Amino acid sequence: MIVPFDANKLNTLLEEAGLDLLLVTTRHNIRYLTGGYHNHYHARMRRTGTTRYLTVLGLPQGQLDRAFFITGEEELPTVEWRRLWVPQVHATRQQDRASFFQDSQSAARTTANIVHSLGFAGARIGLELPFLPAETYLLWRDEFPRARFSDATALLGELRAIKTEAELDLLRRNAAGTVDAMQATFRAGQAGTTTAELADRLQLELVRRGLELQWALIAMGVDGPQRRWPSERAWQPGEILRIDSGGGLDDYLVDLSRMGCLGEPPKLAQAIFADCLVINDSVIRAVKPGLTCGELYTLAQDALKQSAYSQYGQHVTHGMGLVTHDPPDVEAGSERVLEPGMVMSLEAQFEHPQAGDIRIEDMVAVTASGCEPLGHTGREWCIV
Amino acid sequence: MIVPFDANKLNTLLEEAGLDLLLVTTRHNIRYLTGGYHNHYHARMRRTGTTRYLTVLGLPQGQLDRAFFITGEEELPTVEWRRLWVPQVHATRQQDRASFFQDSQSAARTTANIVHSLGFAGARIGLELPFLPAETYLLWRDEFPRARFSDATALLGELRAIKTEAELDLLRRNAAGTVDAMQATFRAGQAGTTTAELADRLQLELVRRGLELQWALIAMGVDGPQRRWPSERAWQPGEILRIDSGGGLDDYLVDLSRMGCLGEPPKLAQAIFADCLVINDSVIRAVKPGLTCGELYTLAQDALKQSAYSQYGQHVTHGMGLVTHDPPDVEAGSERVLEPGMVMSLEAQFEHPQAGDIRIEDMVAVTASGCEPLGHTGREWCIV
Repeated sequence: MIVPFDANKLNTLLEEAGLDLLLVTTRHNIRYLTGGYHNHYHARMRRTGTTRYLTVLGLPQGQLDRAFFITGEEELPTVEWRRLWVPQVHATRQQDRASFFQDSQSAARTTANIVHSLGFAGARIGLELPFLPAETYLLWRDEFPRARFSDATALLGELRAIKTEAELDLLRRNAAGTVDAMQATFRAGQAGTTTAELADRLQLELVRRGLELQWALIAMGVDGPQRRWPSERAWQPGEILRIDSGGGLDDYLVDLSRMGCLGEPPKLAQAIFADCLVINDSVIRAVKPGLTCGELYTLAQDALKQSAYSQYGQHVTHGMGLVTHDPPDVEAGSERVLEPGMVMSLEAQFEHPQAGDIRIEDMVAVTASGCEPLGHTGREWCIV
Repeated sequence: MIVPFDANKLNTLLEEAGLDLLLVTTRHNIRYLTGGYHNHYHARMRRTGTTRYLTVLGLPQGQLDRAFFITGEEELPTVEWRRLWVPQVHATRQQDRASFFQDSQSAARTTANIVHSLGFAGARIGLELPFLPAETYLLWRDEFPRARFSDATALLGELRAIKTEAELDLLRRNAAGTVDAMQATFRAGQAGTTTAELADRLQLELVRRGLELQWALIAMGVDGPQRRWPSERAWQPGEILRIDSGGGLDDYLVDLSRMGCLGEPPKLAQAIFADCLVINDSVIRAVKPGLTCGELYTLAQDALKQSAYSQYGQHVTHGMGLVTHDPPDVEAGSERVLEPGMVMSLEAQFEHPQAGDIRIEDMVAVTASGCEPLGHTGREWCIV
């Protein structure tokens, strides 16, 4: 039995958290723990009738040979085809005819039977409480009155913190494609193009490159609530445009930001953007294993203070992976040490009352000796 | 105060269900009840750090002037810009720095404060239990030990059952675009094209038409688990191909199925598909207001029985809208009456051991005198 994640790390994390059993229910964590499995039909669409699609992966602490996966009858041939490592796979028949495919209560009931039969009814059980449907929780609470439930969302984030070469490759390709799609979007714009049209175009350019749009923050101008959201605001000559977006590739997410302008950018905007690049370049040069997140935070804030516009600026760094803001958390005073395989987004951002929203957001993967930037192109103004 | 839904119907439904307050938390129902509002940033991406995005719409029974909406600070300008009808809008500041945007527990806490201040702490509260995060439920249960919680998912489905002209227009455009995208996908195929490539192509064709891919069931051949899912299976001359897909337009979903073939389809497949069309045509001719769902069910099953291949066939009809399988539920014996504004998908399907998966899935909107088919083109074989 070859599991596609670090089984020792999982066991250590479960021991430290005092958990006997993990019941994993999110698409992204099931994908991670099964080495890529997901059901295509429910990749985007989870609401079905009066219920929702749910699968459950059960991982007993220290006993992965007793792991189990609960899926719908409909999905069973796919699970077999994909040859999941999980020793026990149980299919449920939907209770609710209207749901057609798997419904969450059938999955919850089947899981309850397995948990009873494995002797975990009184166990300490880790759940993904921000994502677990309340009705599933209620059914399990009734089924296991002696169990102690707690949240294991952060624990699973920790398990995912160090990326494998295969994960890095997905993030690398995603970052390169996302930046490329942003450049194509800038170039497709002209005087009068609205931010809603640019957002649609970005989605098309991402899909053409095999990526999924996660979000498109298209900032144009200096004021108004529609400044940051796709709207009817139209691009004017001399107006700067920021695209901040995340493509998705096999559920792995990137978070990058690039600048464009219709014609020559205003001098003030040019000066501020030059500072963005100086700041991010200096932070990227400093990233290496052994540096603490607190040191990285201080270093970035110090670089920001060198800018004449620092009162309008911020610097934010956060981990990336299957969720935005994966570990590590880069905050003041954090003693957490950077390790090879961590992936982060680093953003130097200014909101200047006259110049508008000016940013660069880059991504890096920590390597053995420093870091590898991901999607590190198109960092200059894209002049249209 | 003009609300974008049938306020009388909502009040009647709440009275019948014995509910004092609805706390709505799903994107699709918030979109419905606010007349289209959603946050672009979280349209596709809800997992942020160790938490998830959550907004809450509170609707007191019979007192929509006391309705409230809980959103993130970040989102407030957009809410103001969109001019929601909801009288009270409260913004929360995220508690969890890593979440960056709104996190579910901040939203839950702010909601709890409002519910207390409005005097609903001991009320009968309707929730969307298959979708509500367990941690949000737990916080509310602790805050309101005297409240009685129950599931209002079906009630909200009922509220949405009759579509307005604006909703019909979204579904009409979506259905037309989805069928068009399917035809373009068939035509883009050739010998050797895999079902994974066809699924990617379908997504591109949908996005080009302003639609979102929800799913792509690409069935090819007669056996194997990968038969129905995007895979490395390659199209061969004379092989039939079924595309069943749902595009999304402003969250409104369609569900349609079309057939293609590389060259002339086998005689058996042609005969079965001809039966599909005869069956669905006869069902569509019968749809009109006043017909009960039970009558519609019987009528479809009778039409199916006329086919020489009926032992391999099924006929399924279900409502469509913001969720797949919206009301009405078309089942044996149902006395529910069809009403103008209901939208349904009707599928005549055969899984024949030699011929493979052969289906037609159409959509109709019930009108004052009969029904209007949606996206009713490309119903013949698409011969490539």
